[in-house]
Amino acid sequence: MQSDLPKVLHKIAHAPMLWHALRAGLVLEPEKTVVVAGHGADLVQASAHEFDPEIQIALQTEQLGTAHAVAQARPALDGFEGDAIVLYGDTPFIREETLAAITQARVSNDVVVLGFDAIDPGRYGRLITDGDELMRIVEFKDASPLERSLRLCNSGVISAKAEVLFDLIDAVGNNNASGEYYLTDIVAIAKSRGLTAGVVRCPEAETLGVNSRSELASAEAGFQTLARAELLDNGVTMHAPDTTFLAWDTVIGRDAEVEPYVIFGPGVTVESEARIRAFSHLEGAHVSRGATVGPYARLRPGAELAEDTHVGNFVEIKNAQVHQGAKVNHLTYIGDAEIGERTNIGAGTITCNYDGVFKHKTTIGRDAFIGSSTMLVAPVSVGNEAMTASGSVVTENVPDGALAIGRAKQVSKPGLATKLFAMLRAKKAKQQAQKD
Amino acid sequence: MQSDLPKVLHKIAHAPMLWHALRAGLVLEPEKTVVVAGHGADLVQASAHEFDPEIQIALQTEQLGTAHAVAQARPALDGFEGDAIVLYGDTPFIREETLAAITQARVSNDVVVLGFDAIDPGRYGRLITDGDELMRIVEFKDASPLERSLRLCNSGVISAKAEVLFDLIDAVGNNNASGEYYLTDIVAIAKSRGLTAGVVRCPEAETLGVNSRSELASAEAGFQTLARAELLDNGVTMHAPDTTFLAWDTVIGRDAEVEPYVIFGPGVTVESEARIRAFSHLEGAHVSRGATVGPYARLRPGAELAEDTHVGNFVEIKNAQVHQGAKVNHLTYIGDAEIGERTNIGAGTITCNYDGVFKHKTTIGRDAFIGSSTMLVAPVSVGNEAMTASGSVVTENVPDGALAIGRAKQVSKPGLATKLFAMLRAKKAKQQAQKD
Amino acid sequence: MQSDLPKVLHKIAHAPMLWHALRAGLVLEPEKTVVVAGHGADLVQASAHEFDPEIQIALQTEQLGTAHAVAQARPALDGFEGDAIVLYGDTPFIREETLAAITQARVSNDVVVLGFDAIDPGRYGRLITDGDELMRIVEFKDASPLERSLRLCNSGVISAKAEVLFDLIDAVGNNNASGEYYLTDIVAIAKSRGLTAGVVRCPEAETLGVNSRSELASAEAGFQTLARAELLDNGVTMHAPDTTFLAWDTVIGRDAEVEPYVIFGPGVTVESEARIRAFSHLEGAHVSRGATVGPYARLRPGAELAEDTHVGNFVEIKNAQVHQGAKVNHLTYIGDAEIGERTNIGAGTITCNYDGVFKHKTTIGRDAFIGSSTMLVAPVSVGNEAMTASGSVVTENVPDGALAIGRAKQVSKPGLATKLFAMLRAKKAKQQAQKD
Repeated sequence: MQSDLPKVLHKIAHAPMLWHALRAGLVLEPEKTVVVAGHGADLVQASAHEFDPEIQIALQTEQLGTAHAVAQARPALDGFEGDAIVLYGDTPFIREETLAAITQARVSNDVVVLGFDAIDPGRYGRLITDGDELMRIVEFKDASPLERSLRLCNSGVISAKAEVLFDLIDAVGNNNASGEYYLTDIVAIAKSRGLTAGVVRCPEAETLGVNSRSELASAEAGFQTLARAELLDNGVTMHAPDTTFLAWDTVIGRDAEVEPYVIFGPGVTVESEARIRAFSHLEGAHVSRGATVGPYARLRPGAELAEDTHVGNFVEIKNAQVHQGAKVNHLTYIGDAEIGERTNIGAGTITCNYDGVFKHKTTIGRDAFIGSSTMLVAPVSVGNEAMTASGSVVTENVPDGALAIGRAKQVSKPGLATKLFAMLRAKKAKQQAQKD
Repeated sequence: MQSDLPKVLHKIAHAPMLWHALRAGLVLEPEKTVVVAGHGADLVQASAHEFDPEIQIALQTEQLGTAHAVAQARPALDGFEGDAIVLYGDTPFIREETLAAITQARVSNDVVVLGFDAIDPGRYGRLITDGDELMRIVEFKDASPLERSLRLCNSGVISAKAEVLFDLIDAVGNNNASGEYYLTDIVAIAKSRGLTAGVVRCPEAETLGVNSRSELASAEAGFQTLARAELLDNGVTMHAPDTTFLAWDTVIGRDAEVEPYVIFGPGVTVESEARIRAFSHLEGAHVSRGATVGPYARLRPGAELAEDTHVGNFVEIKNAQVHQGAKVNHLTYIGDAEIGERTNIGAGTITCNYDGVFKHKTTIGRDAFIGSSTMLVAPVSVGNEAMTASGSVVTENVPDGALAIGRAKQVSKPGLATKLFAMLRAKKAKQQAQKD
Repeated sequence: MQSDLPKVLHKIAHAPMLWHALRAGLVLEPEKTVVVAGHGADLVQASAHEFDPEIQIALQTEQLGTAHAVAQARPALDGFEGDAIVLYGDTPFIREETLAAITQARVSNDVVVLGFDAIDPGRYGRLITDGDELMRIVEFKDASPLERSLRLCNSGVISAKAEVLFDLIDAVGNNNASGEYYLTDIVAIAKSRGLTAGVVRCPEAETLGVNSRSELASAEAGFQTLARAELLDNGVTMHAPDTTFLAWDTVIGRDAEVEPYVIFGPGVTVESEARIRAFSHLEGAHVSRGATVGPYARLRPGAELAEDTHVGNFVEIKNAQVHQGAKVNHLTYIGDAEIGERTNIGAGTITCNYDGVFKHKTTIGRDAFIGSSTMLVAPVSVGNEAMTASGSVVTENVPDGALAIGRAKQVSKPGLATKLFAMLRAKKAKQQAQKD
């Protein structure tokens, strides 16, 4: 990856690859989850615990092969009597349906391996089957020409009763070219002990690993394609789905509408019948039913838009509750604020929330009218049904029903513009003459 | 479609599918147009009349098949002696050339059916021909294996003299599995009466119907591809045509330039040699020759930009005439306004057009200079060659040649900033100390 | 091209096609570069000299064929003893590796021609070879059926010692259907004189010429694809590379991050570990290590962002130095300015740099705090550690450590908002009653 970050922490759709694998595994309702970490274990542990603090971390200090890696999870699963499944942090695309099929196949097989029919099998390990039965897994370099001609390949995902898995791993040796302990060897060992083994097949795309920035970009594109299709299937209207970027956890309700060129960062929920207009950018925001956002709206973390709110163009909202029916339509910055029901915020309004050191809060009541280019110098509050005159700087609280005004009286100086224009033009003409 | 909206009212390129079909039909210069509506007929009627108030609506209260649907149009066409053609509201891609070919084929055939060679004929009805002659149309389920092997399929589009069409429909029965009256049956009936029938072929893409949100998204993509190619052919410069979204009625002149990521909503005309810069969003706007729009400009309905005007970044213009050579370059909202020739609008200017209940107008003369962050509290006017000082709130009319100024005098308080910074930092240090 | 502009001046990635060809040639470290210009020679000359003032221009007043065109370069190369290579201004995709291969092939051949294996050879001239040796070039219309069946085609690129090239051209006649002097004829002439000729092959894509707006759009797309792949290879993180538009001279450092929907105009350098967020637009700008730009930031020519600066949403920066650690986060226009280290610019700030005729400069010191919606009426300066109160119009210099304030005192009028709302609603109700 040309990077110091552990590979499994590189992100797809704003989540580390590790999280994608962990999330897929949730369909199995696991009693315990163990993450085996080697390189950058501290970072991997922190990320895993961010996903779920209950996850146990097993440290692999030496890199002695996949069987050795899995063996590190043994202490954490000591006495555990259920099934175990081995997934990979850099294989983020296994679908829940596939994992369910593996569980199902375990009913009639002691060991189940996930395979895929490769378009170009290349140097993948091959699954050697006899009818429905898996006989063994053969590494490419040890495979005969006939075996190499097979297209059913090994994904590495494997499932067995936990006890059985670790017993089989105990029997794996490292008497091979690389001197590594291969997890794949357990199938032949199982067969030699009279256990049964089966194969579940999935599309090759699910087993894709990520080993370069270019593959990471492809994986990102693959995620987006699947996520967009899923939203369409769920009844979201997307005029140009290819132009929408989704995060791993984006939730959009039925009959919501998403226009072209919208980006969803992590932590966004959009309810039914909301409308996200073009060129909008949302992160950590909640958009309620019937609300309209954009075009060119930026919702930052903590933006909470209630039902039927309007947030318009060139508006930034951060850490603010915008209550039902309120409108913030043009060229505005709302940060660290609360805006009451049906209140209208005029164009160019700014919550001056930062004094250079601290952040302060602005509170505006219901049915208020904030005139254009009002500066709300926080901490400050504006009451219900209150008004501010456009161009006012509001530094003191405005009571309910009051009008706050803070601006100089307009004076018109007759003829002065004409005189100023003439002066400037004369100066320019003189400069031009000097140049020539 | 998983939707309460009648299918033909779902939109492609901002127009209901119905309008696309109606527009295609205009090439035939129809004397009368009849829309047969069933489900959601009120909405369909309203939409059809929005397209053309002369359109007649025929109500199909029961859904008894395609022949029954067409029969509902009979009263509206009573005594009409010309040709009739049956088109479909959910088949929006029939090209004008194809309709012209059908008219042409009618010269030598009593009945003409539009067919297409399907790549995968699947369950489409098949057209059974003998040389150039159409013998009959056979539904898939009634077709013999030999007939099913044919790839020439029925689009459903059919044309005949109106009288002939309705006479043939009279003879259609519903003695079939679905108990419906099929329009397709009229071909065999026509042949049995010694009439002639012919086929016109079109590409399969023209006959695509829309039956799901996913197909609607594909149809939208198909429309965009065709519309972009047409603009390129007409001499519009598009750097990245795939990133431009067009409406059904977008008009762009030769040698106009469109940068990446531009969205055209309905009702936009861009004249020759205008330049639409990246990330712009236009709806209901007129951009004249030599004008420049964007990047990040939003033109809303009623924005009229005269020749050689400039509208720059983070600017919103709504219901406003911007006269020749005027400039609105930065961070500005202009709504319900008129801006005179060669006038310059400073950054951060806002027309305060809304008082919470009513909208009011702002009028600015020619050769005026509006200083940055001027609030124009409408209704208000600024005269020719007038000026406003930056930061002024203008509530009263400004005469020609006058300078309007409305702001407090600047005072500098020596050392006060240093003192304030020190206070804030001390407070923060204290808070930090309490935490530790 | 349906255009008055000479074809070679149409742009790909913001540079005339001519520049792409000239840039490719630089790998050969040419002692002299001669551009032969016919149609629109003045414009071509100006463009070539903008690329490199040392380039010599040879005028071709009559269009008598490719050999005649090259012959015009003779006076400029009089007495030049090195190698010459003939490139084409409308063939912008020849890679440096290919040119190096031609130079290499010249070691063992008197004349070297660049050929390509065409997927569909169509009407291209064919290269007739005998083993590794090039025997002659045959125009399609003069080719035998056997020769037409060959797929190795002539790109037109040719290299020889300059003296040899011009001697061979002297022998070219125009006794053919078009009456033109063909450069391709020199191969047969060379062979007849006992000289050797060889072929270098390149992928067909490199030899693509541009002859229509549609081909220009394809060439642009081709350039973008290659340029994006190169950045990925160089360790730039791009979440959605297909959405990034690059200029011919864009430079982005390793581990810099580019989010979706970013446009680079000409003259942009982004250093390592900088972050360019979504929907940003950069032209002629320099972004230093660790800086963050966007989303929705526009950097115009002369924007120089030092290390660890932040430029946020709806911000435009033009001709301005933003020093280390400074922040300009929201809804701001900075033009013709200098901003000191660690200074924070509040939302809605505008440098009022234009008085209608002249542009003036704003200078802000280090560690200053510019309050929201400050108007900085240039020429003006704000000192180190100085502050401006939000909503102030600053027309006079602010000393170091001072607080500048220029705004009216806020007044609250109790109950006035309630009264005003009531009046407006009553008026509306009355209007409504009159309508009904």
